[in-house]
Amino acid sequence: MAAESPRAWITLRSLAETGTSEELGRYARSLASDELLHAMFRLNRDEQTRLLTRLPPKMAASMLGDVPNELAAEILDDLAPQDGAAVLNEMDSDSQADILGSMEREEAEQFLSLMSPTEAEHARLLLAYEADVAGGLMITEFLAFPEATTIEQITAELKRVAHLDEGYHIDQIYALSPDGLLAGAVPLIEMVGAGGSTRLADLMSAVRPTKADAELHDLAAFFDHDRSPSIPVVDDRRHLVGVVTREAVDHAKAMQSEEMQRKIQGIVGGDEIRTAPTLKRSARRLVWLSINIVLNGIAASVIAFYQGTLSAVIALAVFLPIVSDMSGCSGNQAVAVSLRELSLGFIRPFDVLRVWGKELSVGLLNGIVLGCLLGAVAWIWKGNPYLGVVVGGALAANTVVAVSIGGSVPLILKRLGLDPALASGPILTTVTDMCGFLFVLSFATAALPQLAP
Amino acid sequence: MAAESPRAWITLRSLAETGTSEELGRYARSLASDELLHAMFRLNRDEQTRLLTRLPPKMAASMLGDVPNELAAEILDDLAPQDGAAVLNEMDSDSQADILGSMEREEAEQFLSLMSPTEAEHARLLLAYEADVAGGLMITEFLAFPEATTIEQITAELKRVAHLDEGYHIDQIYALSPDGLLAGAVPLIEMVGAGGSTRLADLMSAVRPTKADAELHDLAAFFDHDRSPSIPVVDDRRHLVGVVTREAVDHAKAMQSEEMQRKIQGIVGGDEIRTAPTLKRSARRLVWLSINIVLNGIAASVIAFYQGTLSAVIALAVFLPIVSDMSGCSGNQAVAVSLRELSLGFIRPFDVLRVWGKELSVGLLNGIVLGCLLGAVAWIWKGNPYLGVVVGGALAANTVVAVSIGGSVPLILKRLGLDPALASGPILTTVTDMCGFLFVLSFATAALPQLAP
Repeated sequence: MAAESPRAWITLRSLAETGTSEELGRYARSLASDELLHAMFRLNRDEQTRLLTRLPPKMAASMLGDVPNELAAEILDDLAPQDGAAVLNEMDSDSQADILGSMEREEAEQFLSLMSPTEAEHARLLLAYEADVAGGLMITEFLAFPEATTIEQITAELKRVAHLDEGYHIDQIYALSPDGLLAGAVPLIEMVGAGGSTRLADLMSAVRPTKADAELHDLAAFFDHDRSPSIPVVDDRRHLVGVVTREAVDHAKAMQSEEMQRKIQGIVGGDEIRTAPTLKRSARRLVWLSINIVLNGIAASVIAFYQGTLSAVIALAVFLPIVSDMSGCSGNQAVAVSLRELSLGFIRPFDVLRVWGKELSVGLLNGIVLGCLLGAVAWIWKGNPYLGVVVGGALAANTVVAVSIGGSVPLILKRLGLDPALASGPILTTVTDMCGFLFVLSFATAALPQLAP
Repeated sequence: MAAESPRAWITLRSLAETGTSEELGRYARSLASDELLHAMFRLNRDEQTRLLTRLPPKMAASMLGDVPNELAAEILDDLAPQDGAAVLNEMDSDSQADILGSMEREEAEQFLSLMSPTEAEHARLLLAYEADVAGGLMITEFLAFPEATTIEQITAELKRVAHLDEGYHIDQIYALSPDGLLAGAVPLIEMVGAGGSTRLADLMSAVRPTKADAELHDLAAFFDHDRSPSIPVVDDRRHLVGVVTREAVDHAKAMQSEEMQRKIQGIVGGDEIRTAPTLKRSARRLVWLSINIVLNGIAASVIAFYQGTLSAVIALAVFLPIVSDMSGCSGNQAVAVSLRELSLGFIRPFDVLRVWGKELSVGLLNGIVLGCLLGAVAWIWKGNPYLGVVVGGALAANTVVAVSIGGSVPLILKRLGLDPALASGPILTTVTDMCGFLFVLSFATAALPQLAP
């Protein structure tokens, strides 16, 4: 790991301003790539633009490859169009399409018109697809030859590609039938030791290609059960259009799961980068917070209905947040277990009743334990056993409600075709808060003669 | 995607009980692998044991490969030792070591003594290392030959390995010096087209190996900046001991980030599997809940100190949970942004003051907006502008506190060598709850003459 050099950004900024492009490139190359990235994000937008304009395009491309697509698009947008196109030219087709796809259509078209014609053609091909289907995940950097081609003829091309740094991931060579359709594949390992006059047709074995609209889920399932490092993508007439690598699928899955995790926390603002203007960052976060304040208000309005009970037994106010927060915790545990079992494939949406049964038993047990604990505290504090029963009973009841919702709602959402991660966060919190307040205050109202004699 | 067949587990259970081992294997093979997994987790532990004992070991091995290590270890433990060892024999060395490493030492030794000697030797080698360093992530399924070996001599071995299903990931062949040390590597792509009499030494290029104690972080950095699909691992004398694949590193990183995400939610119970006994599941969740109830109690005790104020202005009870919950939301947004920027490399631990400054501006802005909103609601509801000022001011102040803690604590924890994800969850919630209650009630106490005239 590179030593931390907090001042790298200062050197970089002054070189971007006053040094030659060569000096800048040399200094940037001397930094570890994460150090370079950190330095870039200490610069303001104008300084970033100057830096990227003056860095060698290949270097700028590799740096932007480590940045989320939306942000890379924003940054490219600030460059002069020719400079931006030069950087895009140096990326692999998948990244090109992802970044261009995050731009407005017009901006993307402007960059495409300035890129090298081959690069632009490949990027356009991928842009036609959603980012998360085979067509959007594939790269067009593959090798395919007519099946009659000999090993000797292929060797030179293989050597050339092996020494390029252009995003080729060659693990097999594709063989095309005389009418140009995908006929088979030859893993490199099978080609080693074959005589120079051997033809691809002699070595090739059948391949099972996928269509450009195959979804991430299906691609992941393929790689789970097949050791191939890549899968070819064909159009309706079996023309080879691209190759999806295992790495691209793993990466897309990781992104998807990170996004899901942010949704679990209900943190839409997680996509924010702190170099963005304060007003924009504030606005993005407020969208989410405003929804939440309404939900919070709905839950808290339960308390307003019971102000009489509350002013008679003011000690209840201490237990209201405890009961609602604790139930939220219990519910989140159930959500986490359901999400994990869903993603591992141990449960499926139709298992909702079985899952509910399993949660009910744990919820009852934990509710009784926690209820007794909190009830005892309440009893001892105020010397009133009825207060203990009210508070402990409310926590026990609300724990059962929370685990029931937390365990089953992810499965129900999945069945409805929605993201199961949405189950936690606001839905769970609002319901457990409301029910918690309701249990404490309605139990207390019923026991009012004993609580406030 | 396979159609869902909710009843597959019933057929599987009856075949495991009464069918021949062959019938069972045939039926299991007819299921998609996720369907098979789902069916297995509908069975109770005894039925699972019977199923795994009677399935062909290769199939049982591939199924257990999809299960978290601890659970796979538990399940193997229920099998007869010979049966368990037969299943372990069919796994790649990395999985063997991960699963054996999750067992008690004695149990692991028993399995090792029953496994095939070569498999056991490889597993023992990997077991000596932590799971998350190169030694624990590497596989021992690689090909290495003396550098004088010719392509012709290697070809047969390559063909043999290509058709094995034993976890080989061959992308390059390693060349050993006359004294058996790692001398270089030859990518397969370079071997294609080479004459049969070419020696490895003629083709090999230098490789930069890693040591067995290299950490996941460093391996990930290597693969980020190098296109190789694998990196060789050597001991202190440069003997080749294994190979770490890009896939193994990606997988380990994904596991680490999932674990981190569960910590963010403070959900230790997420590792639970619902087939475990109710008491065990309940106990695991209670550990976490008990810590939380204490923290909750501490926060709520603030309310107990202000019972006088509260009973004078009972409407405050409605706003207490709103202020504390909303600040928790704001704080979590800041945590999420810090964690993301840390993981992307945009910020580093020493940036804590800069991050705090950026959070302060957004926190002030959002605090004022939310405070005005909530204050207006309070004013209109009770017709008392002072109540609005108290409630709104408390929310604004607590929002600033929450984003300051949420934004900076992850960096401080990282600097202390702790997991930054621990910042959210309990620490943040407890502090924002306490401060929220304190602001509302102390402001109200100060304004008491105006609030309860």
